[in-house]
Amino acid sequence: MSRIAYVNGQYVPHSRAFVHIEDRGYQFADGVYEVFAVHHGRLIGQQGHLDRLAHSLAALQIDWPMGKRPFMVAVNEVVRRNHVTNGLVYIQITRGVARRDHGFPAQCESALVITARKMPALHKPTLSKGINIITIPDIRWKRKDIKSISLLPNCLGKQQAREAGAFEAWMYNEQDEITEGTSSNAWIVTADGELVTRDVSHSILNGITRLAVLEAAAAAGLTFSERAFSRQEAAEAKEAFITSSTSHVKAVTRIDDAPVGNGHIGEMTARLLDLYVAYIEEKGGPVKTDRWS
Amino acid sequence: MSRIAYVNGQYVPHSRAFVHIEDRGYQFADGVYEVFAVHHGRLIGQQGHLDRLAHSLAALQIDWPMGKRPFMVAVNEVVRRNHVTNGLVYIQITRGVARRDHGFPAQCESALVITARKMPALHKPTLSKGINIITIPDIRWKRKDIKSISLLPNCLGKQQAREAGAFEAWMYNEQDEITEGTSSNAWIVTADGELVTRDVSHSILNGITRLAVLEAAAAAGLTFSERAFSRQEAAEAKEAFITSSTSHVKAVTRIDDAPVGNGHIGEMTARLLDLYVAYIEEKGGPVKTDRWS
Repeated sequence: MSRIAYVNGQYVPHSRAFVHIEDRGYQFADGVYEVFAVHHGRLIGQQGHLDRLAHSLAALQIDWPMGKRPFMVAVNEVVRRNHVTNGLVYIQITRGVARRDHGFPAQCESALVITARKMPALHKPTLSKGINIITIPDIRWKRKDIKSISLLPNCLGKQQAREAGAFEAWMYNEQDEITEGTSSNAWIVTADGELVTRDVSHSILNGITRLAVLEAAAAAGLTFSERAFSRQEAAEAKEAFITSSTSHVKAVTRIDDAPVGNGHIGEMTARLLDLYVAYIEEKGGPVKTDRWS
Repeated sequence: MSRIAYVNGQYVPHSRAFVHIEDRGYQFADGVYEVFAVHHGRLIGQQGHLDRLAHSLAALQIDWPMGKRPFMVAVNEVVRRNHVTNGLVYIQITRGVARRDHGFPAQCESALVITARKMPALHKPTLSKGINIITIPDIRWKRKDIKSISLLPNCLGKQQAREAGAFEAWMYNEQDEITEGTSSNAWIVTADGELVTRDVSHSILNGITRLAVLEAAAAAGLTFSERAFSRQEAAEAKEAFITSSTSHVKAVTRIDDAPVGNGHIGEMTARLLDLYVAYIEEKGGPVKTDRWS
């Protein structure tokens, strides 16, 4: 059965899903996106994704392509037409089609593309197995809080990780602090047992899964710190993991070719994975989603 | 008469020029571009654009979509089919279409789009009239030497200029040095009479027009410095101008709402505009085009 995509008002076969060459997303990366996880038939973190999308659009002065209600109807319709019970929905909004010119066009209708795809259901043993990561310089622009499609450095970083036999790359800034992964947030349990993830600013994208894990941890009475942590702290960490809509809570067991702790998923990571799954199954995602930078 | 675009092997009406939604240019800004000026029926700086394109493609490990000879045949054919005597050719190459995933796909054919458009012929009085510019923080990534389509910050900067009633924005880094304009190189004649444009590194895109002006100046026995200059030096400059394939040599007569010199095009700028036009009409563009970063 062929996949169906939503493209500017129409549901079309994926193979015939096209946009104009002068869509500003294609020529200028002038657009934003969101990826929702679908977990057992349910969209996870719906309010969070909508609020973050609103933040990204406002930061770039791009109009919503339609009201939020019909927008969510379209999102759900793409999920339905693609029979996705476990997987993801990808949403991209660009400023639209206009004659090429860097400044914003006087008149332009925002373009909307929605796709969905099946993926294996969340599987704790797989997430617990542990991945390798490398650390690389963060060469991105200064507005990482905007979930823009300007993802070239992220692609280069992910590719660098792959070529090094790693699943992900953590990026470090000029102060030698870890900012985040190329498509995930970075977490450690320090040598002293402190659960840490970087605080929200223009330096990172505030993940919906990050927020859900923080809420789940708080609800369970766990303490954590939202603060910058250094490459050195990461190298000496007892535990490490990444979070994202598609990686959920995924154990990191090697950083730059050295084992993290005993080289297996840590206790805190395993607990947070359990808490996270229970939390999203109960709440559907994070509840407080009002601060993006 | 409708415009014709070249899209992945076909010449199509501009209105029906489409790319797939999973072209990595659309989802990741994973591509590069070039803009050639067409001046009195001639492509300007052909070798320079080709060499720089090769640099950008190599930096991103993107394959040429075809050999350079058929590539130039297609470029010239688009110019011909659009009857462009004065104007520009726009060329975009992306990594191609693949299922969305940050890392590079194992197999992928580079995508190629070429468009051309008529513009008014180079007109010295218009270029001499003088434009306003503003200065803004440079928030871009660290590989500005790659002419990538990851242009979102450039668009935001150009728009900021427009909203301030200016034609262009010059960006300054954390050391308060001017790097370049959002779509042009920046030049000044200092209070002491030194002709200055920033030296080539990862901090700027080495413009083909920049190179032609440097060569024209050298050929005329003028001295110049390729070095970083500060916002302060720009504010105190006797003359200022920008260069780009579409702006040629364009006088800057106001910076951040203060006049440059006497508020009219400077002597050196006027001379360089003359020298540049004579140089490209004789040589077709810069001759030495081997250093891009």
